[in-house]
Amino acid sequence: MSGAKHEAAIIGGGVIGGGWAARLLLNGWDVRVFDPDPAARHKTEAVLANARRALPGLWDTRPPAEGHIRYCQSISETARDVPLVIEAVPERLEVKHLVYEAIETVNETGLIASSTSGLMPSDLQSKMCHPQRLIVAHPFNPVYLLPLVELVAGQQTDPAKIAEATGIYRALGMYPLHCRVEIEGFLSDRLQEALWREALWLLKDKVATAQELDTAIAFGPGLRWAQMGTMQTFHLAGGEGGMRAMLAMFGPCLKWPWTKLTDVPELTDTFVEMVGQQCDAQAGGRDPRQLEQIRDDNLVAILRALKGRDWGAGHSLNQADDARRAADPEPDFRAPVRVLEQVVPSNWTDYNGHMNEARYLEAFSKGTDRFMEMVGVDAAYIASGGSYFTAETHIRHLAEVRAGGKIRVDTLLLSGRGKKMHIFNRMSDATGRLLATGEQILIHVSLKTRRASPPADHIADKLTMIEAHHAKLPRPEGIGRAVGQRPSAKP
Amino acid sequence: MSGAKHEAAIIGGGVIGGGWAARLLLNGWDVRVFDPDPAARHKTEAVLANARRALPGLWDTRPPAEGHIRYCQSISETARDVPLVIEAVPERLEVKHLVYEAIETVNETGLIASSTSGLMPSDLQSKMCHPQRLIVAHPFNPVYLLPLVELVAGQQTDPAKIAEATGIYRALGMYPLHCRVEIEGFLSDRLQEALWREALWLLKDKVATAQELDTAIAFGPGLRWAQMGTMQTFHLAGGEGGMRAMLAMFGPCLKWPWTKLTDVPELTDTFVEMVGQQCDAQAGGRDPRQLEQIRDDNLVAILRALKGRDWGAGHSLNQADDARRAADPEPDFRAPVRVLEQVVPSNWTDYNGHMNEARYLEAFSKGTDRFMEMVGVDAAYIASGGSYFTAETHIRHLAEVRAGGKIRVDTLLLSGRGKKMHIFNRMSDATGRLLATGEQILIHVSLKTRRASPPADHIADKLTMIEAHHAKLPRPEGIGRAVGQRPSAKP
Repeated sequence: MSGAKHEAAIIGGGVIGGGWAARLLLNGWDVRVFDPDPAARHKTEAVLANARRALPGLWDTRPPAEGHIRYCQSISETARDVPLVIEAVPERLEVKHLVYEAIETVNETGLIASSTSGLMPSDLQSKMCHPQRLIVAHPFNPVYLLPLVELVAGQQTDPAKIAEATGIYRALGMYPLHCRVEIEGFLSDRLQEALWREALWLLKDKVATAQELDTAIAFGPGLRWAQMGTMQTFHLAGGEGGMRAMLAMFGPCLKWPWTKLTDVPELTDTFVEMVGQQCDAQAGGRDPRQLEQIRDDNLVAILRALKGRDWGAGHSLNQADDARRAADPEPDFRAPVRVLEQVVPSNWTDYNGHMNEARYLEAFSKGTDRFMEMVGVDAAYIASGGSYFTAETHIRHLAEVRAGGKIRVDTLLLSGRGKKMHIFNRMSDATGRLLATGEQILIHVSLKTRRASPPADHIADKLTMIEAHHAKLPRPEGIGRAVGQRPSAKP
Repeated sequence: MSGAKHEAAIIGGGVIGGGWAARLLLNGWDVRVFDPDPAARHKTEAVLANARRALPGLWDTRPPAEGHIRYCQSISETARDVPLVIEAVPERLEVKHLVYEAIETVNETGLIASSTSGLMPSDLQSKMCHPQRLIVAHPFNPVYLLPLVELVAGQQTDPAKIAEATGIYRALGMYPLHCRVEIEGFLSDRLQEALWREALWLLKDKVATAQELDTAIAFGPGLRWAQMGTMQTFHLAGGEGGMRAMLAMFGPCLKWPWTKLTDVPELTDTFVEMVGQQCDAQAGGRDPRQLEQIRDDNLVAILRALKGRDWGAGHSLNQADDARRAADPEPDFRAPVRVLEQVVPSNWTDYNGHMNEARYLEAFSKGTDRFMEMVGVDAAYIASGGSYFTAETHIRHLAEVRAGGKIRVDTLLLSGRGKKMHIFNRMSDATGRLLATGEQILIHVSLKTRRASPPADHIADKLTMIEAHHAKLPRPEGIGRAVGQRPSAKP
């Protein structure tokens, strides 16, 4: 896509149409939207507001200037002279036929992309004047965030239109999957609906509640599915034997009365070998051990992302951390305070093969959070409107540390009076080797005014007590240093 | 769990038994393992090696001292006198009955937990002397990482054993899900197998390959399933009307010939209302808009985690970033170099409601990576064995920035001769307001020796050129400052 303005028409402004509008606009396209429902504009604006707050955060680049949205009064006004018309109306064939008829009165050449979840493109295009330009481009909610879009051609579709669409959706940051065989439901909804149908049976039979069924996914298989699908996941579960072993082991179980619907394809040798070869091809020459480690590192990264959100599996991991910390002995403030002790996660390293520089500050920051808690700046205090903001940081990276290495941070309180807190952190490994120092100044603020303010008395008292203790301790080398200043120089 | 040593027996040392051993050992338990297969010890050690490199990275706390593993020669040696016996042998009822018989000759009171994926605990315990202590505790591969464990009681199980097991698995960092109704396959495998069965049909009919089916999950629905299950996901896809609207909209589609197996429960008003109420309960009083934003922030965090891994959906996002950067104009080295321009993602903020201090360094670090690329320190150069390591950093946090805010980093090269590079970064927002400065010293190293070394000539030449340009520019305020040093003071 060059820098020229692109323009698309969207017929239907619900969750899906609004999602398309948002993805296009935030990628710099101009968009015209038509929906006969008077509430559609409000719905589209709501989706757009969500997209504005979430999508640009996926990009490590400058966001393009947002395109312009125009709400139109008719299909003909919307679809006239645009190179791309997205249809996102209800899943009724006769409604879609009427929409295409209206589009074709004003637009003879633009790509027409239906968002249908499962109707066959051959049926969609059957009454069109120029059917060769219709494709299915099936997205997933939220359309502005999820990369997958299934592309399906009908019998009359010009194959070049799939290639054209692939380029468009890639430029929109999506991952086009060409479904080569035209079937109802395509690929993703076939798989999703099989699962959903089973879920509905389990609800119907009162075996489990909606929440229990969701837990059975989001705390286990769902974490795997965010990074490898069912086939690769089971290829790994089969151990050294891979998918072939898995089919031998669990193939017979598929015939047990485990689900409401137990018809399964016959697992002939030919079929097992075909599936096995496809799984090998997918592994791309990686042996099972390599794939396992890739999977594990992906899971650590995903689970840590959920910890940061304190949601789902991440929430339960945070609770486990809290329980472990609660078992720690009371801190001894007569010595530097041990504020962090953990292992370097695999996703904290970078292309240099060691912990990335930003993770040093992340560790210091987490340590400072812990120190704050110890002196009374806990969740309740923060909710009451007081907190500390970091004003300044000086880090010396003295030694490397790799994934799996143990790190600890000890905090020396240089001064803690008034609004200002001055600390000196030392990070060391399990052998006591110094890895880094981090000197910081923090300022107590009111979270309402966002300005400096004195801390509550009980916090001031505790800091004064710790400062008095720490004043008796030796001052470690490196305090008060500017960047590049030699140890011998005096500031 | 107190600090006392716990000990467990594991019968069966494959992927699942080895995974249990790893989770227990790394949580400080002692473990005895028995498997008649001579290769089992090797397999268990391989799983343990994987677990050691991945699991502690999930914890933001000090890892417990690892327990001791003993490989035993018989079931009786393994199971004697331990409070927990984990059975992880093949899915054959008669084999499991023999194992329980052998366990009961030496252990009358310990909890016996079967790892079966789908056999009924009532059938497992039917021949036991003390059947009240048998439960199913069904884990998910990799057992050492995934939190879910399904707990199922048989007809003869003492209900107190489920409570006891819940405590044990929580202390092991897991998320126990009590499956209240005993059915084959429990909950998670019912759902997984429905999906897998459909996948096998699609493979059989040559509609898609294993890789295409996995893409249809991992780039779309799988990303949702890592943080919300099918029910909550569709509750949101239903828009304002939630699950009730979704069932009205797509319920009829479930009767279309979309899958091989289309028998569905009748969607009576009563049933729809029951499911709707359960989805409301699960939402916990959050309205759809709040839930959508939670979902979106979760997805941004998960997708960014996958970007960091350059895997799956994260790889395609990185490719999109690269394509956007490739369209940038050539940098003008006569001015400070624009090395970063992006939006603050929602998962970069903290409890103070602004970008966390560590993310300032992450942004500076990414900017420096970009600057390195511009001067020739790209992936190929790093693969050849040269790179720069950060030795020292001084950050002044001058103003807050929130999620969604635009940030830019401009780099001034203070000196770039020899092994050392001295830079001064300024981070500003879209209005040009200064948010932070970051002064850094980096050292060129050989990645083989991990010691300082001179950069390649073409890099040295480029840095010399930029340094000469930048020497003519005004020096911004704040260079060479130590932490806490006032602007007026001279170093």
